[in-house]
Amino acid sequence: MTAFAERLQKIAAEHSTLCLGLDPSPRLLAAWELPDSAAGAREFCRRALDAAQGLIGIVKPQAAFYERFGATGVAVLDEVVAEIRDRGQLSIVDCKRGDVAHTMVAYCQGLKGNAMTLTAYLGFAALHDGLGELVAKGAGAFVVVRSSNPEGSALQRARLESGDTVAEHLADEITAYNRGLDADPKPGPIGAVIGATLEDEALALVERLPLSYILAPGVGAQGATLGDLQSRFGGHLGRLVPTASRSLVGPGPDIAAMRRAMAGAAEEWQRLQTD
Amino acid sequence: MTAFAERLQKIAAEHSTLCLGLDPSPRLLAAWELPDSAAGAREFCRRALDAAQGLIGIVKPQAAFYERFGATGVAVLDEVVAEIRDRGQLSIVDCKRGDVAHTMVAYCQGLKGNAMTLTAYLGFAALHDGLGELVAKGAGAFVVVRSSNPEGSALQRARLESGDTVAEHLADEITAYNRGLDADPKPGPIGAVIGATLEDEALALVERLPLSYILAPGVGAQGATLGDLQSRFGGHLGRLVPTASRSLVGPGPDIAAMRRAMAGAAEEWQRLQTD
Repeated sequence: MTAFAERLQKIAAEHSTLCLGLDPSPRLLAAWELPDSAAGAREFCRRALDAAQGLIGIVKPQAAFYERFGATGVAVLDEVVAEIRDRGQLSIVDCKRGDVAHTMVAYCQGLKGNAMTLTAYLGFAALHDGLGELVAKGAGAFVVVRSSNPEGSALQRARLESGDTVAEHLADEITAYNRGLDADPKPGPIGAVIGATLEDEALALVERLPLSYILAPGVGAQGATLGDLQSRFGGHLGRLVPTASRSLVGPGPDIAAMRRAMAGAAEEWQRLQTD
Repeated sequence: MTAFAERLQKIAAEHSTLCLGLDPSPRLLAAWELPDSAAGAREFCRRALDAAQGLIGIVKPQAAFYERFGATGVAVLDEVVAEIRDRGQLSIVDCKRGDVAHTMVAYCQGLKGNAMTLTAYLGFAALHDGLGELVAKGAGAFVVVRSSNPEGSALQRARLESGDTVAEHLADEITAYNRGLDADPKPGPIGAVIGATLEDEALALVERLPLSYILAPGVGAQGATLGDLQSRFGGHLGRLVPTASRSLVGPGPDIAAMRRAMAGAAEEWQRLQTD
């Protein structure tokens, strides 16, 4: 099995690292005149994935918008993850799990996608055993380091006894983990989440994460433009996975309209990287 | 509908605040000679709940040990939550969700139990809208403030610009939220998780949480005794919800043996509170 980071690298070469957020929220389902149900979410994903075919290689379903329908919604999420795989795309299940070691092993064993997002309020070391499960099956993870929402700043900028911030320390721990897997200076399986909306802090954090892909949510409707990423993330755009949802599926349910938005964003992102 | 904190108070008066952790891990299922499957987890819960009937009023299933079986496992978790309700007990779904505001609303809308656990790496304010959903349907939450595992210390003891630690600041935010709901100085719907294993820090944190029930995992197999809680949590035992799992179900699958362990722990906990 090809490991996660290599598959991501291959996808990036074929398409780009642009990532489609697949979030069947009540508002989006209503805008598409779909029922606010698991079946509505399934249809939403089918159309959005039809539109993305051949244009976008990475898809990030947000688990909450499926889990809200209970076990039926989770079955739909599993189907969507399988459809993403069958279409030759990579899936990142955005579920932000974070717990103690033996619990994380259970969560990571349950992952059906190619990667999942994690949080580390209980400490990065508590994630180790779970990360081991992911790596063993060729999957990856993105640990939230610095989130796109303003409410996260106080905690993520709090200082440890060493003087480092919580986010800086976590970045170093992720880098040490990737380095421990392979001496090769290529990105490893453990990435980081750093909000695309951060104006001044992103670059220094990305530089502490030389072996990580960076999932950057918040592009489009959340306020950041792809162009912003160029100034905020400097020379590291090749490792960036910018994620947009509403700006790509907002023109739906018309598939041609979504394809125009997706093709435009993918082309802009490729152009910015070669600038 | 009776609100969560009132129901918890009533349960505490009828039984005690002792909480049974319902964690169908591979190891426990193997020890009971049950298959490591969703059906095995279902049977595990049925027997453990039979044993707890009339002895323990609060049950905390750990979501990871159900979700590892995919949608079928989530269906079992929903069934177990319904069984807990039908038996007249309170359920706390230990799923430690934590995300941005509109995502938290989706998670909280999906809750079928009486309460859920949450984490706040993305900030307590990001949980507000989700908490509003819980309160509106008479449910509650326990936000992880200071976890029982040693790996969580560095982050939870990091200092904000105010000089408070992350855990202290979060405790104050929870108290302010509960106070905003009701001027009455009784516990509100938003509780906190503080590990039973913490030797020196628990008391000061609990004193910053005068309006919260405190979920205290780590009793029994994780190393803390019920007696430890008396010295660690001082005069606040009435608001404490000590959680034990392996020490209560370990004597299973024999139901009489589990009942002896559960009755012993419940009696010890009631005695300690009146000492």
